[in-house]
Amino acid sequence: MNIVIAGLGIIGGSFAKAIKKYTDHHITGINRSAAPLEEAMECGAIDEIGSSDSLKDADILILGTFPEAAVDFVRNNAEKIPESCIVIDSSGIKSKICPEMTALSKKYGFTFIGCHPMAGKEQNGFKASEADLFNNASCILIPCTGNESEIKLISDLARKIGFGRIVYSTPEEHDRMIAFTSQLPHVIACSYVLSPVCKNHSGFSAGSYRDVSRVAHINEKLWAELFIENKEPLIEEIDLLTKHLNMIKEAVQKNDRNGLEALLAQSRKVKEELGE
Amino acid sequence: MNIVIAGLGIIGGSFAKAIKKYTDHHITGINRSAAPLEEAMECGAIDEIGSSDSLKDADILILGTFPEAAVDFVRNNAEKIPESCIVIDSSGIKSKICPEMTALSKKYGFTFIGCHPMAGKEQNGFKASEADLFNNASCILIPCTGNESEIKLISDLARKIGFGRIVYSTPEEHDRMIAFTSQLPHVIACSYVLSPVCKNHSGFSAGSYRDVSRVAHINEKLWAELFIENKEPLIEEIDLLTKHLNMIKEAVQKNDRNGLEALLAQSRKVKEELGE
Repeated sequence: MNIVIAGLGIIGGSFAKAIKKYTDHHITGINRSAAPLEEAMECGAIDEIGSSDSLKDADILILGTFPEAAVDFVRNNAEKIPESCIVIDSSGIKSKICPEMTALSKKYGFTFIGCHPMAGKEQNGFKASEADLFNNASCILIPCTGNESEIKLISDLARKIGFGRIVYSTPEEHDRMIAFTSQLPHVIACSYVLSPVCKNHSGFSAGSYRDVSRVAHINEKLWAELFIENKEPLIEEIDLLTKHLNMIKEAVQKNDRNGLEALLAQSRKVKEELGE
Repeated sequence: MNIVIAGLGIIGGSFAKAIKKYTDHHITGINRSAAPLEEAMECGAIDEIGSSDSLKDADILILGTFPEAAVDFVRNNAEKIPESCIVIDSSGIKSKICPEMTALSKKYGFTFIGCHPMAGKEQNGFKASEADLFNNASCILIPCTGNESEIKLISDLARKIGFGRIVYSTPEEHDRMIAFTSQLPHVIACSYVLSPVCKNHSGFSAGSYRDVSRVAHINEKLWAELFIENKEPLIEEIDLLTKHLNMIKEAVQKNDRNGLEALLAQSRKVKEELGE
């Protein structure tokens, strides 16, 4: 197949490297700036550097850009995308993206399937991409306008390049879950490191500090977009977290050891019931 | 040297295993229940099972119990501890422990040095102990009544059994730093997993969820004691975190993308300046 990847950051770059490593598909890279394309050519992650004109031969178009930019790219190039092409994104939000992409897909005839690879790290850009970034990760698919065989084609490709699990979801469920599993930890990490004590942590810290603070090394432009586009579920999770923080705080304040133990035991049981 | 370890949980057990692995000192284990002692004998982590009477020959006494139990153990057995003995604890709080231990130390003539190994994991008990738990970790020492040569003896032993760094501190500095680096992450993890969404995270989560939630698998009796005994610094950190969470929340609520980006960039810079 001819696979066009638009946006060679950590996710787009990892798609390129993984597809190259695990399949024989032909990969064309498109990117706003030249450097990642040259790097990708040099390390063999892509077969050629393309432009929007390359879309006319695409069997699959993978969007590795920020969410809004993904919609803009498709809107601006919709006439070049063949009706036989399956377009997938890799955005961390879906309720805003999927309806817009579905509308474009229906208007121009191509297929759109929402995709969110549950993998990443606290670095960004093509340099951070890895052929095995998706290894054993979960790949969330939102069917949108994909029919059964198109969805199978994408999920087969996902498994082939390392994903350990395919999860089918709706935009709403996806965004509600992601607000908790991914966005809230980023909000927590960024809030956590703003304590004035943070800069002196060295020598007084271990795994707990490292783990909670890790993703504070954030790409602020991407995450500001993701947070604002998923406002309601995210704010609900921040409010819940604040409520639970206050419950623990009050038990500490009142020296309520039994109440505090009961609260902490409740959390321990959540982890135990999950087998974690 | 004759080293007595009282309390063979994850920390006491790891001290035993590490001292056995990296030195030739003779280790006597004391524990309230018999099972960890038998296990420790079986795997060779201790040379003999002792009782409080073993203290009379101790060159070093390592306390692996909860903080209050450590003080109780020393108070109840103070007359058996030789004046030449160096007593160290392993508690996660110091402002409450160190003055009490210092008073006992002065009254009975032995030496007390506060010790906090910055290592651990989300499991507990002797079974979770490891000879290399302290590998490259930081060992915080509060000198208390230790003189220069006694402090050197303990820090040399700490380096020998794997610690990568010795940090000298005061009870107050220790507790303020630990409130942020260790206690707050536990409060966060326990608050985080109480979201009703948590139980369905599987398939929608990756490293961010795993890292923030890890220490919610908590020993509630230990941590309730640690939190309450470090009330002021901990509550200050919870309040700061809540304030920063609300700043992010408000920016999201108002669609204030520039303000949100600026906040997140501030957090990213904290990590960058720390080289993390």
